[in-house]
Amino acid sequence: MHLSRFFIGTLKEAPAEAELVSHRLMLRAGLIRRLGSGLYTWMPMGLRVLRKIEHIVREEMNRSGALEVLMPTVIPAELWQETGRWDKFGPQMLKIRDRHDRDFCYGPTHEEVISDIARREIRSYRQLPLNFYQIQTKFRDEIRPRFGVMRAREFVMKDAYSFHADLASLEKTYGVMVETYSRIFTRLGLRFRAVAADTGAIGGSGSHEFHVLADSGEDAIAFCPQSDYAANIELAEAVAPAATRADPGPLLEKVATPDTTRCAHVAQYLGVPLTQVMKSLLVLSSAGHPYLLLLRGDHELNEVKAGKLIEGLRLATDAEIQALVGPAKGYLGPVGLPAGHITVVADHTAAVMSDFVCGANAADQHWQHVHFGRDLPEPDQVADLRNVVAGDPSPDGRGTLEICRGIEVGHVFQLRTKYSEAMSLQYLDETGQSRPVEMGCYGIGVSRIVAAAIEQHHDERGICFPRAIAPFEVALVAIGLGKSPRVRETAEMLHETLAQAGIEVLFDDRDERLGVMLSDQELLGIPLRVVIGDRGLQEGMVELQGRRDPSGEKIPLAEVVMRLQEKLALA
Amino acid sequence: MHLSRFFIGTLKEAPAEAELVSHRLMLRAGLIRRLGSGLYTWMPMGLRVLRKIEHIVREEMNRSGALEVLMPTVIPAELWQETGRWDKFGPQMLKIRDRHDRDFCYGPTHEEVISDIARREIRSYRQLPLNFYQIQTKFRDEIRPRFGVMRAREFVMKDAYSFHADLASLEKTYGVMVETYSRIFTRLGLRFRAVAADTGAIGGSGSHEFHVLADSGEDAIAFCPQSDYAANIELAEAVAPAATRADPGPLLEKVATPDTTRCAHVAQYLGVPLTQVMKSLLVLSSAGHPYLLLLRGDHELNEVKAGKLIEGLRLATDAEIQALVGPAKGYLGPVGLPAGHITVVADHTAAVMSDFVCGANAADQHWQHVHFGRDLPEPDQVADLRNVVAGDPSPDGRGTLEICRGIEVGHVFQLRTKYSEAMSLQYLDETGQSRPVEMGCYGIGVSRIVAAAIEQHHDERGICFPRAIAPFEVALVAIGLGKSPRVRETAEMLHETLAQAGIEVLFDDRDERLGVMLSDQELLGIPLRVVIGDRGLQEGMVELQGRRDPSGEKIPLAEVVMRLQEKLALA
Repeated sequence: MHLSRFFIGTLKEAPAEAELVSHRLMLRAGLIRRLGSGLYTWMPMGLRVLRKIEHIVREEMNRSGALEVLMPTVIPAELWQETGRWDKFGPQMLKIRDRHDRDFCYGPTHEEVISDIARREIRSYRQLPLNFYQIQTKFRDEIRPRFGVMRAREFVMKDAYSFHADLASLEKTYGVMVETYSRIFTRLGLRFRAVAADTGAIGGSGSHEFHVLADSGEDAIAFCPQSDYAANIELAEAVAPAATRADPGPLLEKVATPDTTRCAHVAQYLGVPLTQVMKSLLVLSSAGHPYLLLLRGDHELNEVKAGKLIEGLRLATDAEIQALVGPAKGYLGPVGLPAGHITVVADHTAAVMSDFVCGANAADQHWQHVHFGRDLPEPDQVADLRNVVAGDPSPDGRGTLEICRGIEVGHVFQLRTKYSEAMSLQYLDETGQSRPVEMGCYGIGVSRIVAAAIEQHHDERGICFPRAIAPFEVALVAIGLGKSPRVRETAEMLHETLAQAGIEVLFDDRDERLGVMLSDQELLGIPLRVVIGDRGLQEGMVELQGRRDPSGEKIPLAEVVMRLQEKLALA
Repeated sequence: MHLSRFFIGTLKEAPAEAELVSHRLMLRAGLIRRLGSGLYTWMPMGLRVLRKIEHIVREEMNRSGALEVLMPTVIPAELWQETGRWDKFGPQMLKIRDRHDRDFCYGPTHEEVISDIARREIRSYRQLPLNFYQIQTKFRDEIRPRFGVMRAREFVMKDAYSFHADLASLEKTYGVMVETYSRIFTRLGLRFRAVAADTGAIGGSGSHEFHVLADSGEDAIAFCPQSDYAANIELAEAVAPAATRADPGPLLEKVATPDTTRCAHVAQYLGVPLTQVMKSLLVLSSAGHPYLLLLRGDHELNEVKAGKLIEGLRLATDAEIQALVGPAKGYLGPVGLPAGHITVVADHTAAVMSDFVCGANAADQHWQHVHFGRDLPEPDQVADLRNVVAGDPSPDGRGTLEICRGIEVGHVFQLRTKYSEAMSLQYLDETGQSRPVEMGCYGIGVSRIVAAAIEQHHDERGICFPRAIAPFEVALVAIGLGKSPRVRETAEMLHETLAQAGIEVLFDDRDERLGVMLSDQELLGIPLRVVIGDRGLQEGMVELQGRRDPSGEKIPLAEVVMRLQEKLALA
């Protein structure tokens, strides 16, 4: 491709609103342009990347036996009302009214639509299993869209839905999908991890997320280097400590701790380790019942875990603390609570603490040398309430956990019969009996992968795309082709030869300054570049350099194709 | 592809609501399923057809130098307000309000969006020309969606938009697009015609439609077999007759014509040729001014042509006829109209009529032997008001016109500066002066092509897809493969061999009755089929039959691949 016949929209500076590296680089490289909040146009350079990802996803889905379909984006409300999600999905669902005042939405996901299709088509166990997928534009009306295509409102998603006679068949296809996803992300050239995950709003049981690993990732992932264990920190189990509680220390003592509300400050002020301080959080259930949650000072509350114990969990307001416990804001503690009123739930680790410090439910006061059973009752309940931290034992008992950050790009669920029961999707089994269909669903955030890949693959000069998804494989840069007929002719010939060899080459024929051409190639993340100039050509040489290489090497013109093919095969 | 691993949704009967052949066949063949009014899911078999069309469109657009982009489907209202189309587009535009109560629409077309992108990117004449296209889901809220994907609300469209420094450059790209479209429809295997067209609501000047020829087509096309001339009948010029008006006949005479309001009945009743009867239509402009339009009795009003003379043209109501002319409904005529009030416009052919019959502006009465200039004034205006008919002279003077019917599948426009002026899309020319960008736009109804192709290619047994867009090229049908290991093994081997040879084969391994398998292949329109059975295999023979062939032929198993390749090359 001659650059003069293509469109390049590189910018020196990214707009100020772009916070994330990938967002800045995608705008600067001209891959996308913003149309409105959370709405982006894929420009020619960016669409090449998106299409390569789509192509790999499609090939691997087809290889897995899934069948591609294309459902409407505009979905009648009636289907969502059948499952109750018309009301429950929340304001992320973009609701639409047509000219006849009928209700629709712009599909944020398609469980209802595919279940409606399936219940019209599936009669017998003989038709099962089936796995339908589509690659389609979705819309979710994020309250605060940001980070470019990482969290856009309109985005491209691959969504697949499988249908089964029994759980064994669902589990088999689920396994095939996990393998398929691993092949997809491997082919895309991404470092990723499949992690056990919470099932969240989609529902069902059994779920894995696929994360592209990047320091900027929104999700924390706990994994065990000694085993296969990996889980979203939301879900990762904090194993109850094997150690039992130590013997009591000195007698209970109240100490003044003026203006010292945070655990770390308390520890410092009193000269004790942070692991000796008890963190106390007052929360309420949606029914209004109060709970005091206890955590070791260095641990953090895991709201997903706590939310499974306490329905509709939320932190108490200042006014609620005042009303329930008194003027204890910042100095909450489990000692001397109003009797029988507040349920005390301790994290496993907190429950075995001894000789600890906690708030005294009065301003500027803490208790020291506290001991369960002596100074206060045992907790009403002991549970896993905290996020795991690096160094915790792995739940599979095969090592210790580490923490990394990831960007969720795929999610697979065993939906079971949640949707088939709500929508009367049944089949006749071998005995002629009607049974609900078992379902799985499998998503990939296709457009988000572009941003995730850039978060993982960039440096200070721009993007460093993996070969499989780079907009072009090779940049051909010609120095002074307006002045030197030899440079122009050689470059044109080389461009033609490379194209014939099936190499995707972008020939920068703009006759720009060398610095401009090279920095564009670096910004765009094209994996390899060949620079042709008059001086080198006098010796029959051109310069070849990989995007990540510190410097280039001179190679004979005659060897360019072979060397590029070698490097692309390795990339 | 083994049919047992694919999804086939063939039906014996189509739902009653399907009127058009293509709609019935697409439902019966399981290509699509209805989700709601004007909303269809593309099932695996249908999506293969759609994707093949997309692929050919994309290849040819790329070959033409156009650059693919992908714009959002959800468009902020502000852009449409800039061009005034937010209000003017009408109820076909699906308007949406997001969670922040901001207005958007689901893009029915993308002139505004691409112009917004272009005005941010285009600075200099050096960047021009540019041609961007996308293949995308569009939505138009048709008041009465019908005919399946022929007139759906959600559909797939290829829309391209070109940008130019001057008209000459626009005309050049316009010509390239006309050639590109011709290549596309030729490759798709369709009989089509490019016709001059009205520019309609999109605006601008200069426009061609591409029609797939089919008797069921909604559009009538006038064409000249002796030349290249072809035009939508909306636009086709009715050449003014060379003949002048004949001398007056007998004197004016009023005749009673009870209950005889239609021209054909009047002619019959009075025993005169229909071409001697004047058709009179009372219409009003949007400003309320009345016009009497005169046409020869056998001619039909062309509302597009008349609408260009009379803004907001509409037929007068019964009450308006009564108020303006009197009790003349069904008996309107140009003789004795209230003076100076109603403007009389005669079609060219009507204006040279002599000795004619017309309504007498009174119930059950006509005038006979009417002559312009003697019995009534000459018409206020003479113009082209009528649809051309077969036998009219071609406007290019090179023969006579014929009429055929077509389905519009493509439309190209020279928009000129309509959008660039409304949206301040300018560039700097060689002298540094700011000028509005010239624009063209080029659409193809990608999903509609599937229906149009079927309208053109079907018979009483089902679809007869052209090879290029058939879901599979070859159906492999095995008789009794559940009983005969030889049939199963041979079929499996042949399936593998054909797939290796790059032939798209659907292997019907359902072990169904032969009649069921053959009728499915015929309904689906797979161009070729190979039938394998035990009896034939005893002689080393299989049966090969084209979808349109009256009967099959026996060929040696060893020659199947070669013979199929020959036939596919010819198809």
